[in-house]
Amino acid sequence: MKSFLGYLKEENMSLFTDFYELTMCASYFDNKNFEPATFDLFIRRLPENRSYFLFAGLEDALLYLQSIKFTDEHLAFLKKQGFKEDFLDYLRGFRFTGNVWAVPEGAIAFPNEPLIRVTAPIIEAQLAETFLLNSVNLQTMIATKASRVVHAAKGKSVIEFGLRREQGIDAGMKVARSSYIAGCQGTSNVLAGQTYGIPVFGTMAHSFIMSYSKEIDAFRAFAKTFPNKSTLLIDTYDDISGVEKAAVVAKELEAKGFRLGGVRLDSGDLAQTSKKVRKILDDQDLAYVKIFASGDLDEFKIEELLSKGARIDSFGVGTKMGTSADRPYLDVIYKLCETMTADGGFSPIMKLSKDKITLPGRKQVYRFMDAAENFEKDTIALADEKVEGEPLLVKVIEKGRLIYKFPSLGDIRATATENLSKLPEEYKALTGAPVYPVELSRNLLNLVKTLKRQLTITEINHGF
Amino acid sequence: MKSFLGYLKEENMSLFTDFYELTMCASYFDNKNFEPATFDLFIRRLPENRSYFLFAGLEDALLYLQSIKFTDEHLAFLKKQGFKEDFLDYLRGFRFTGNVWAVPEGAIAFPNEPLIRVTAPIIEAQLAETFLLNSVNLQTMIATKASRVVHAAKGKSVIEFGLRREQGIDAGMKVARSSYIAGCQGTSNVLAGQTYGIPVFGTMAHSFIMSYSKEIDAFRAFAKTFPNKSTLLIDTYDDISGVEKAAVVAKELEAKGFRLGGVRLDSGDLAQTSKKVRKILDDQDLAYVKIFASGDLDEFKIEELLSKGARIDSFGVGTKMGTSADRPYLDVIYKLCETMTADGGFSPIMKLSKDKITLPGRKQVYRFMDAAENFEKDTIALADEKVEGEPLLVKVIEKGRLIYKFPSLGDIRATATENLSKLPEEYKALTGAPVYPVELSRNLLNLVKTLKRQLTITEINHGF
Repeated sequence: MKSFLGYLKEENMSLFTDFYELTMCASYFDNKNFEPATFDLFIRRLPENRSYFLFAGLEDALLYLQSIKFTDEHLAFLKKQGFKEDFLDYLRGFRFTGNVWAVPEGAIAFPNEPLIRVTAPIIEAQLAETFLLNSVNLQTMIATKASRVVHAAKGKSVIEFGLRREQGIDAGMKVARSSYIAGCQGTSNVLAGQTYGIPVFGTMAHSFIMSYSKEIDAFRAFAKTFPNKSTLLIDTYDDISGVEKAAVVAKELEAKGFRLGGVRLDSGDLAQTSKKVRKILDDQDLAYVKIFASGDLDEFKIEELLSKGARIDSFGVGTKMGTSADRPYLDVIYKLCETMTADGGFSPIMKLSKDKITLPGRKQVYRFMDAAENFEKDTIALADEKVEGEPLLVKVIEKGRLIYKFPSLGDIRATATENLSKLPEEYKALTGAPVYPVELSRNLLNLVKTLKRQLTITEINHGF
Repeated sequence: MKSFLGYLKEENMSLFTDFYELTMCASYFDNKNFEPATFDLFIRRLPENRSYFLFAGLEDALLYLQSIKFTDEHLAFLKKQGFKEDFLDYLRGFRFTGNVWAVPEGAIAFPNEPLIRVTAPIIEAQLAETFLLNSVNLQTMIATKASRVVHAAKGKSVIEFGLRREQGIDAGMKVARSSYIAGCQGTSNVLAGQTYGIPVFGTMAHSFIMSYSKEIDAFRAFAKTFPNKSTLLIDTYDDISGVEKAAVVAKELEAKGFRLGGVRLDSGDLAQTSKKVRKILDDQDLAYVKIFASGDLDEFKIEELLSKGARIDSFGVGTKMGTSADRPYLDVIYKLCETMTADGGFSPIMKLSKDKITLPGRKQVYRFMDAAENFEKDTIALADEKVEGEPLLVKVIEKGRLIYKFPSLGDIRATATENLSKLPEEYKALTGAPVYPVELSRNLLNLVKTLKRQLTITEINHGF
């Protein structure tokens, strides 16, 4: 049988790269450039309405770096693309030998702060670019989005429900993982449940109701199979007649010593309907029956529903969270910030372009706390500079060897929860949040000024 | 070493499903419902500015149906989720035994038209929902978006460049495939090149330039490695001084009997700059040097650039196409349209809800051509109804067996090109395109009316 996922192997991620990474590497090789260089992975700016990032995607990034390896099959393909034998021979023996520093998953981060810092022979550091960006882009984007949804739900539970419209298989898995890190209670994705140990949740679809000629027969059939944990979808025909039938089934379950879990609303005016449904249930002593709501939800809709007094216990949030629909990508970039000079010293690098300045040199980020131990401001400094505050980047790979013990997903989730709790409330506003202060250290600022002057003089004015 | 892609196996796609598919299946099993049912996969409505869909994602969908299989590991996990032994035993022997009809990849489709029609014992048909939606959502969304970009480029070549910010690994692969189907010339994704045989393209990054202390040294180093196919990135410091240096290198190459391939612009006013760059090159008899442009492009920007007379030969289009950023999901759904009745007959099913009517019964789509053999209108009809026009759905799986010969990717691309050429120009406008006429056949219309009346009377008024 034809295989449709056969290419998704760790080793094949060596080719999961933009072609230009390989052409650049070939030219570095050809010109005998094996000197170390440092690249920063960071996010240029905040998408609209976001005021922080919840960082995720590191585990895949580091496992990828450990796994890079060119097989005979890869090399045969690259040969056909015109790469020369000596470079292919070099790739045959390739492994990643550099040092990597990174911010842990579940950290709160801000624009321009290095999230992953790679120092390695320039070919190795360059080759890693595409995969690292792809991994951090998706997972940080979703963790950030989901943290906003969870915040808007004010303690009501949020379940990630978007699998059917997330962008492909890997996204379906990583969205479940990232949104769980961000505080979702679970996912509808069964494979993510098995793979990551995330709690899985599900109710029923309209098709289940419609496959029975009477709605109440569908409810009874489902309750027979799951007498103690059914959530009945009540809006296929009419919410109110739906909840009345659900109440009948709840009483039938009670008579047998069971309890109906909940009812689900998937359309219409959820605030209004949930209040009516709650009253109907309460009037029949069914206060224990929970109300679950879904249908085109995001952080803005949830905030609105709760502000209107919706009586909803749990939110199923799908497509809009699972694709970060209002901004389905981050301005995540990977920039050279340092090369080694002929005399063995390091030379800081900066790109000079009006709105696109990059910060030169090997850097560290320091976080400062206020009196209440909440986040107050960050300082981006040179790595060897003495600065107060808590350093965020930790060494994770040393000379190619993973020295970082991956935290469990539960621990990452706990870290995220703690960090979000230390981020002052004002930064969590869904719109109009203030800008969190991120400063440059004195030494970094001086370096930027010096390089700016140099670049302007040497490159622009003199040309060749 | 910890595996980070180990879960991405065909067999594991059996758990790549919403939990509710399994709870519904368990209840069908529990209630001894093994009768056949028919589900339609279709897209409810067009996203803003789209006026058609370019269908893709079928191959994965069908290979998935062929691969569904529950392993001991899967069953052990499902047992922990509370499923009963008899249902798990049933799953142990599960395989898909139904019939499937589908529209071929590369077809043009419109809202409400069935794209995949699954008739199978209801448990089998239900279980397939999530994966089928996920596959069609991503690939049809991207093929549609990319076809708009290619159309806007008016014959200039478009290369898919978005790997770094596409939503995960699978998206990175499927975006390359779908945008190639839609008419892109190639991709930057090397693994997609190897896996699907798509041409790969790449130039160089700013980091390559910045790793040299002089821009021209970087150009010379790259040209040394790729003397006959270098595309030099000229905007790291200043476009104009960049192209002047590129021209020097081009002349150096000429002296050795080689030719510079092109220059690349990645920022600034691309229309204005490309004209200046073209003039500088032409003035030095370098008319053969192509201009390649990238940087935040989509169909709207490309249309604008060309309308301003930009002198660009080739567009590298990334994030906005690769995530379908203006609308990163489709309203793709999978709805029950027919069940079997107690007497063995089939009973058409329809959902009654104000804006969410589904079309009942097993259906076929017929396309009508005008005198010039262009697409004129479609009719959705009942499958057994006699209607003129070309039927779009073909039988692809019979009694669980794949009877469809997958076309090569090149053939799918050719089909897409041909179909797009038959779609009248007015429907390809980037904004404000008219609505393509899709009619319901007389029999289907009558069935809808009858069912509406029945549903209203029996379900709403009488309740229980």
